[in-house]
Amino acid sequence: MKAVVLHAIEDLRIEQRDEVDLGPGQVRVRIESGGICGSDLHYFHHARMGDFPVREPFVLGHEAAGTVAEVGSGVTSVAVGDRVAINPSHPCRTCDYCRTGRENLCAEMIFLGSSRRFPHVQGMFAQSYVTHERQCVAVPAGTPSAVAAFAEPFSVALHAVSHAGSLLGRRVLVTGAGPIGALCLTAARLGGAASIEITDVLPEPLKVAEAIGATRTINAADPGDPIADPARPRGRFEVAFECSGHPSALRTCLEQLAPGGTLVQVGTYADPKVVVPADYVMVKELTLKSSFRFAREFPLAVDLLASGRVDAAPLLSHEFDLADAMKAFRTAADRKQAMKVHIRF
Amino acid sequence: MKAVVLHAIEDLRIEQRDEVDLGPGQVRVRIESGGICGSDLHYFHHARMGDFPVREPFVLGHEAAGTVAEVGSGVTSVAVGDRVAINPSHPCRTCDYCRTGRENLCAEMIFLGSSRRFPHVQGMFAQSYVTHERQCVAVPAGTPSAVAAFAEPFSVALHAVSHAGSLLGRRVLVTGAGPIGALCLTAARLGGAASIEITDVLPEPLKVAEAIGATRTINAADPGDPIADPARPRGRFEVAFECSGHPSALRTCLEQLAPGGTLVQVGTYADPKVVVPADYVMVKELTLKSSFRFAREFPLAVDLLASGRVDAAPLLSHEFDLADAMKAFRTAADRKQAMKVHIRF
Amino acid sequence: MKAVVLHAIEDLRIEQRDEVDLGPGQVRVRIESGGICGSDLHYFHHARMGDFPVREPFVLGHEAAGTVAEVGSGVTSVAVGDRVAINPSHPCRTCDYCRTGRENLCAEMIFLGSSRRFPHVQGMFAQSYVTHERQCVAVPAGTPSAVAAFAEPFSVALHAVSHAGSLLGRRVLVTGAGPIGALCLTAARLGGAASIEITDVLPEPLKVAEAIGATRTINAADPGDPIADPARPRGRFEVAFECSGHPSALRTCLEQLAPGGTLVQVGTYADPKVVVPADYVMVKELTLKSSFRFAREFPLAVDLLASGRVDAAPLLSHEFDLADAMKAFRTAADRKQAMKVHIRF
Amino acid sequence: MKAVVLHAIEDLRIEQRDEVDLGPGQVRVRIESGGICGSDLHYFHHARMGDFPVREPFVLGHEAAGTVAEVGSGVTSVAVGDRVAINPSHPCRTCDYCRTGRENLCAEMIFLGSSRRFPHVQGMFAQSYVTHERQCVAVPAGTPSAVAAFAEPFSVALHAVSHAGSLLGRRVLVTGAGPIGALCLTAARLGGAASIEITDVLPEPLKVAEAIGATRTINAADPGDPIADPARPRGRFEVAFECSGHPSALRTCLEQLAPGGTLVQVGTYADPKVVVPADYVMVKELTLKSSFRFAREFPLAVDLLASGRVDAAPLLSHEFDLADAMKAFRTAADRKQAMKVHIRF
Repeated sequence: MKAVVLHAIEDLRIEQRDEVDLGPGQVRVRIESGGICGSDLHYFHHARMGDFPVREPFVLGHEAAGTVAEVGSGVTSVAVGDRVAINPSHPCRTCDYCRTGRENLCAEMIFLGSSRRFPHVQGMFAQSYVTHERQCVAVPAGTPSAVAAFAEPFSVALHAVSHAGSLLGRRVLVTGAGPIGALCLTAARLGGAASIEITDVLPEPLKVAEAIGATRTINAADPGDPIADPARPRGRFEVAFECSGHPSALRTCLEQLAPGGTLVQVGTYADPKVVVPADYVMVKELTLKSSFRFAREFPLAVDLLASGRVDAAPLLSHEFDLADAMKAFRTAADRKQAMKVHIRF
Repeated sequence: MKAVVLHAIEDLRIEQRDEVDLGPGQVRVRIESGGICGSDLHYFHHARMGDFPVREPFVLGHEAAGTVAEVGSGVTSVAVGDRVAINPSHPCRTCDYCRTGRENLCAEMIFLGSSRRFPHVQGMFAQSYVTHERQCVAVPAGTPSAVAAFAEPFSVALHAVSHAGSLLGRRVLVTGAGPIGALCLTAARLGGAASIEITDVLPEPLKVAEAIGATRTINAADPGDPIADPARPRGRFEVAFECSGHPSALRTCLEQLAPGGTLVQVGTYADPKVVVPADYVMVKELTLKSSFRFAREFPLAVDLLASGRVDAAPLLSHEFDLADAMKAFRTAADRKQAMKVHIRF
Repeated sequence: MKAVVLHAIEDLRIEQRDEVDLGPGQVRVRIESGGICGSDLHYFHHARMGDFPVREPFVLGHEAAGTVAEVGSGVTSVAVGDRVAINPSHPCRTCDYCRTGRENLCAEMIFLGSSRRFPHVQGMFAQSYVTHERQCVAVPAGTPSAVAAFAEPFSVALHAVSHAGSLLGRRVLVTGAGPIGALCLTAARLGGAASIEITDVLPEPLKVAEAIGATRTINAADPGDPIADPARPRGRFEVAFECSGHPSALRTCLEQLAPGGTLVQVGTYADPKVVVPADYVMVKELTLKSSFRFAREFPLAVDLLASGRVDAAPLLSHEFDLADAMKAFRTAADRKQAMKVHIRF
Repeated sequence: MKAVVLHAIEDLRIEQRDEVDLGPGQVRVRIESGGICGSDLHYFHHARMGDFPVREPFVLGHEAAGTVAEVGSGVTSVAVGDRVAINPSHPCRTCDYCRTGRENLCAEMIFLGSSRRFPHVQGMFAQSYVTHERQCVAVPAGTPSAVAAFAEPFSVALHAVSHAGSLLGRRVLVTGAGPIGALCLTAARLGGAASIEITDVLPEPLKVAEAIGATRTINAADPGDPIADPARPRGRFEVAFECSGHPSALRTCLEQLAPGGTLVQVGTYADPKVVVPADYVMVKELTLKSSFRFAREFPLAVDLLASGRVDAAPLLSHEFDLADAMKAFRTAADRKQAMKVHIRF
């Protein structure tokens, strides 16, 4: 079977790999669709994540869905031919965090496609992937794998909105209209937000945001201060989701939140030392929460995508065949062109 | 101006009344549409509410909207010609409840159309109603008064769902598909519930519920136990809204809630001594909340109705002219025919 | 080794039993002190629990502490000679409840000293008990086993107060001053309640409650209504813990709670069909929660007892030797004499 | 009557002022004790607060208690001779924040002793102060005014801990052992925290902290990292209260909080641009809340101080007569000598 393997910066190769044997409880999934995430792109461009360089051939990919091709001994929850989305999150399942619903904070977490450990935790950008049955969530027959593969990033968005409590009737700001920002917009809309305004510095992603239901799109690169409302100088949003990872967007959120508001930080900052305008935070008694990956939202994400309550299709801007994986990555890196880019395996 | 006045059981008269003068801060509203509520019907049939009989000619009605016809001195927030929905809730605004967002619990509450005090607090079923400007919430030009008059019952529903926390992804049960049950369904859907099943003992209201987005409708009068799921003998719902006021529906909710679930009691019981199956409640560690009227949801209700985020139109089954007020009440009392009945003034 | 074995109603025998071999991960604990709980007494008097009769010789006891006498292969967290409190709660550790901090709701729960399954889950009233190391929580050298054995009932109290949110500054009512009521008083005091009033129908337990810090003790059997406050006819408590299992106490709680208040039901009703005055609940918008056993509070309970933050000693009214187990049970059944009765093994 | 008036930097004069007449609802209070707060000291040293310079003779002081000397027409809640603590917070009482329990966020807030408006809002460091009766909270006869004057800073601490939810059984860190840090320690202890560790860079305030119940005191100026625990490299505290206003203390809090923990920022930063280590915040999914003054905690603070549930006496390091006001301020500015300094009027 073939896999998409990163060897060094922008050195992505399609390689033949042997199929591995199945252990008890394991299943072999023919991967049909895999989404390229921002962290995959980061690896592609930098061959590292923070302090953790890529030190061996490394398969990327943690957003994938496909069809079960083979099951190991003792497998009961899925059968050959079942369509599944694969949850890339492997917490230890025994620590206090894992036993109180916060498994994303597990110190022993194994997350697919990460160089944090060595040997690296290989990802799923391959024609075949072997995993434990409990990582598989069944997908109904009528749901394309390209939709099911959105379960992972949509889990991230569902987790982010869960930090803000009920959004019913709330005025929401999202900064950053990339895939995660767009999915946070989707999740906030699903949660009943009265209005959702979204910013970006490019018009293209804002057009997608408009198509999926943004109340208003704002180009933050426009001169002046297009977000501020003179009638509400202390801010007019009750909840903000910062999805860009840009300090200026954080500042915008803190300025535009009404007193008592809540910021959920979802985007990752390139520079971990972020300057926060503490005076805004203090006098307005804001709450700042960070949202890290997701906890137990994966099955719900599959359910909402499969039932049609949430429509991910407008976010899928490109699909490439495996042979064009390099082109897929280059396209995904161009925010003017691409929202979410998938590879077909 | 004419008013709909209750004198005794089923003795409803259309009477001429003098216009009163406006005091400072007051406005005169030409009532255009008024909805008949369950409590109005109760007064119609019993001429009392609990221990409080109707002791003087009594104008019913607390769901109404219209156009401002005249403003008193000092009024700044509305002007002649403005369309408004009128909030019937007059808390004292100074007690601890009023100052912590729970004004519906105010001991000094004055609520329109109630015989609890004497002289009674007269209601709004009249061609003209004088109120303080702060009771008025502006309605956009394009929103019919018949829609705006839903602000009050929809506030009740928004308040009920607020007791259950975020509904995003939750499995919800609603018992009772009358106007309040249907509006709780609407609010729960707006809040992102993954599924909403609703029961009634009549097929007609269930048809309406289906039209407005129920995942499944259940005729509780069917033989057998149409709600129970053998695969989840301890219950399959995370949240239940009991909107019927029937002890058997309460029992159904407690049986069908999964352990750890939440019941919100919205309907009023005819007999205040309700038998609760405590064993269910205890072993499943359920939370039971009651929801009483509404607190500060009225402006949000207007906003959601006016913006089209919520469509109340399918719930408006009948509109009658003032002259047919008696027919309007008789129709409203027939659950096979009527969902919400409005009177045009 | 000897064990206290129930054969039939009030037929309690001290019998010789063989020691069992240790499996991997298991430890043998020499039980030093075991507390008699209300459910032990219920078995003693009725030889059944609800629909589950005692069908085989049955060792009672789920409140116990002792010293590790032997460890099986692979045991790492405790060593021979360690003093431990034993957690009688064995949830499945894999279901959704177990993975979100609500393991007391686990459908596969195994709880010591219960006839719900057959063969019965035997309890710990024996000189020696074999359990898995993860059920053991270390107890410091200076803490008597008679104190450590309070970890289980104090976990119940900590779990109950956890349902009420922060108690800091709250006015609290506890109905029923038996061991669980007294421990809820203790936990509410620890949590910063501004005042805690407690009721019972006997003066003796109220004396103990006074000694451990009740703001006021109330004999509910006194003529008149000793709890009501004419100055606050709608009730003066923000939180109530109903620990008696008597419907009249429930009614008292619902009457005496201020609007918006919270009731936590901790006591078990003999008759599961409880009549609730729904009118109180509705108009005051009360929240009713039930508290079932405990979830993850056991280590915290040991910590608070061992560190002296909580003093359980005033609650230990009697200690009997194993030979006097029958006398211990008879004493425990007499609420005029006994608060908590322990057996020394 | 005499008042303590700031004219310029360190120019504090005792001046004679005329008594003003009482309006309806007003009362004249003979101030008996007034506490010097950090913001009073800031005005003393800088004659400004942020962008708001002192532009006219300015009476400081917002922590004060005394005896009612005269009441205006219509006053019903207090009488001449009553002892009272005066709440310096005057929210508008009508905005959404004031009506939902968050009056500290009111945009129209008038807070005593502030140069934010012009004419300035004068404070209470005077022999006599006229206020509305609703600002007065009755103090029992046995409670010294020097204790009652702690109601204001203790309200700040109660508000801070309210942001952290229930502290029962939590491991708490407090950074900064000045009066606010010490009162947060007191409030966290009252709320049932299992352990409270507190840092400062001076040994003197840490000695006071030890005396009032700190589990452990840590001199953050000691070489090495005296707080870190190698056994819990991701942090060991569940809640941190940052009371120093020093960025290094903020960093310590974020490092030492366990994943999922909560920081409450209480201290004010001199430089509003604070560098936050976002990587810690993100990966550990921390919650950062800021706490600004207090909301509705003032009566509870009086109650807890007066009832003896909380003992403020160990925090009162100095009392000076009015004539020595300058010395009082100089002493208060020396953290090696002073914890809380009061002026007797």
